[in-house]
Amino acid sequence: MKNLRDVYVIGVGMTKFARHPDRKFHDLGQEAVRAALEDAGISYDAIEAAYCGHVMQGSTAGQQVLDKVGRTGIPIMNVENACASGTTAFRSAWANVATGLNNVALAVGFEKMGRGPLKMSRIEEGSEEENKPPMMPFIFAQIFEEHSSRYGTTEEQMALVSVKNHDNGALNPRAQYQKPMTVEEVMNSRPIVGPLRLLMCCPTGAGAAAAIVCSEDIARTAKSKPIRVVASSFQSEKYGDPNEPLTGITEINQRTANLAYEMAGLKPDDIDLVELHDCFAIAEIIHYENLGLCKRGEGGKFIEEGMSKIGGKVAVNPSGGLLAKGHPLGATGVAQVFEIVTQLRGLADQRQVKGAKVGLTHCQGFGGATGVHIFARE
Amino acid sequence: MKNLRDVYVIGVGMTKFARHPDRKFHDLGQEAVRAALEDAGISYDAIEAAYCGHVMQGSTAGQQVLDKVGRTGIPIMNVENACASGTTAFRSAWANVATGLNNVALAVGFEKMGRGPLKMSRIEEGSEEENKPPMMPFIFAQIFEEHSSRYGTTEEQMALVSVKNHDNGALNPRAQYQKPMTVEEVMNSRPIVGPLRLLMCCPTGAGAAAAIVCSEDIARTAKSKPIRVVASSFQSEKYGDPNEPLTGITEINQRTANLAYEMAGLKPDDIDLVELHDCFAIAEIIHYENLGLCKRGEGGKFIEEGMSKIGGKVAVNPSGGLLAKGHPLGATGVAQVFEIVTQLRGLADQRQVKGAKVGLTHCQGFGGATGVHIFARE
Repeated sequence: MKNLRDVYVIGVGMTKFARHPDRKFHDLGQEAVRAALEDAGISYDAIEAAYCGHVMQGSTAGQQVLDKVGRTGIPIMNVENACASGTTAFRSAWANVATGLNNVALAVGFEKMGRGPLKMSRIEEGSEEENKPPMMPFIFAQIFEEHSSRYGTTEEQMALVSVKNHDNGALNPRAQYQKPMTVEEVMNSRPIVGPLRLLMCCPTGAGAAAAIVCSEDIARTAKSKPIRVVASSFQSEKYGDPNEPLTGITEINQRTANLAYEMAGLKPDDIDLVELHDCFAIAEIIHYENLGLCKRGEGGKFIEEGMSKIGGKVAVNPSGGLLAKGHPLGATGVAQVFEIVTQLRGLADQRQVKGAKVGLTHCQGFGGATGVHIFARE
Repeated sequence: MKNLRDVYVIGVGMTKFARHPDRKFHDLGQEAVRAALEDAGISYDAIEAAYCGHVMQGSTAGQQVLDKVGRTGIPIMNVENACASGTTAFRSAWANVATGLNNVALAVGFEKMGRGPLKMSRIEEGSEEENKPPMMPFIFAQIFEEHSSRYGTTEEQMALVSVKNHDNGALNPRAQYQKPMTVEEVMNSRPIVGPLRLLMCCPTGAGAAAAIVCSEDIARTAKSKPIRVVASSFQSEKYGDPNEPLTGITEINQRTANLAYEMAGLKPDDIDLVELHDCFAIAEIIHYENLGLCKRGEGGKFIEEGMSKIGGKVAVNPSGGLLAKGHPLGATGVAQVFEIVTQLRGLADQRQVKGAKVGLTHCQGFGGATGVHIFARE
């Protein structure tokens, strides 16, 4: 890879994540983009390229969102990678500026989802998949069973992840769920698959988030404090045995994170806060390990000892994560950037991670794609 | 924009476009990618990033195509822009190499469509759109009416476009329709909307195409003759009054083409052959004008005088175009690259444009996005 330019985030915007029954994806996206422009103190005319992450909103949904913000004729690309669609948009905007193709680029992620369990992408008519129950909770139940049998991870530890993230979500005015939960409430919530309970699974919902990235010279003129992107790592799967999902989820995420650390010249110990892909509570436990926040097999102990709460060794999902903040698919990866930038600017109010200097986002789309980005306050 | 590196196409592959009732998009995509690798004389391990253009195949369809070609862990991005999804993939791969982010990148486009008229993207439940008839023929019928009333363009001239493209398609073993048509057959085919007849509308279908792009030093070692990309221009709409579709289709396409000519340092007269977006016969007539191949208002005369046939002033759609070669949405933009590269290498057999040195692709996704690329034999 050639020498890349420094890239800065100069503006972020985000809607509340919620059901939003009366709103379309268009105006959710527009709200997020306008907020990011206002935050950066620039007009839409300054944007030279836009990357729009979404899964279910249509092939030119990005244009539908942006047409009412400004019809400037810039290249608009709709990008998808399942649950990693938002991080794909952010990665693309980063690459656009890092390589010097443009000086200012926009990443926006948005989604309006229906109720009920997530269907895996668009399933071919007449295929075997069509009549199977939804796949994701099954996969993560298998992953839990394997992690549990190898390392003794417990259902209570999963519940503790959900409790922590709901505690954090209660401090985030943009979270879909803003109510603390007890371990008992989580453990007694409706069983979904095997040991997975409803409150250990992220909800569906609607929402949008946007981030504006730019080159260093433009960042110096921004209205808000610019935050530097010190690493962008994006990878697809190498290991694909469907009978070994724990190996699969370990390999791609650990590899992507290691490449990000290498690019940033940082170690896991240097990270003050993390927004990671807790689509299910067991995912957060395994990603502690994949991101090197603790040793392999010690993820359960890590949550139990309070290491990942705000004020712990490393604050994980201070926004509430997917479990409490919500997971409108395309929005998630960009919403993670919103949280890290807000935290590194010291503007996260009640949920502020004190003294935070370096933050990391981690987003995985099953299917598969993982993006890890590292951000630093200067 | 910064200084960009020269980019070369070193491998192209394409399936036959057809209904393909017994094949999935996966293996169509794989066939195209394997053919492009074979053409370039490289293994999949050499690919550093992949961009996958499609509209209806699912959020991680690119991974599903590529997983069986090689699981190397590279960044795989699914990109969409309606009918311009393939050209979006090619543009993204070009940018990847032009900026030096990577040295070898893959663009693959694929689609398997159902029968019947194309529905406009994914329509929101309960929206007014849901019960309207398909939109595209209506829009292009309006465009014809306006062009006809301003410039005297005739239904017979539209029929001549279809006849030329079916003549060309009859020489292309990968075309969906390989049978010449007479003006009478076109004029007597089933009416669709207003003056638009069935044979003036491109068919739905299935197929895939792939192109491998790389830096100059790698191109020098390629097995097949490398073709240089001398311009990549990609724009979205500025003008969006739905009551003035002719103004809309003119503005974005002319602007995108002019930017490409400027980047290449070339004039329309320098172009030997063009693959353009003839989704409807009237579109080809208007795009002659938008691409500067003739003066505004003279598109009808241009086809009538045989200027755009193989052996004419500039060969337009020697592949058969969307009308005869077919239009499996995501595949189209990359299939245009396949044709231009094949022609510039002098390997187009019966449909060879003699002495072709410079070729242009033009692809438009309504919604909207237009990509124009210019290629040169060295």
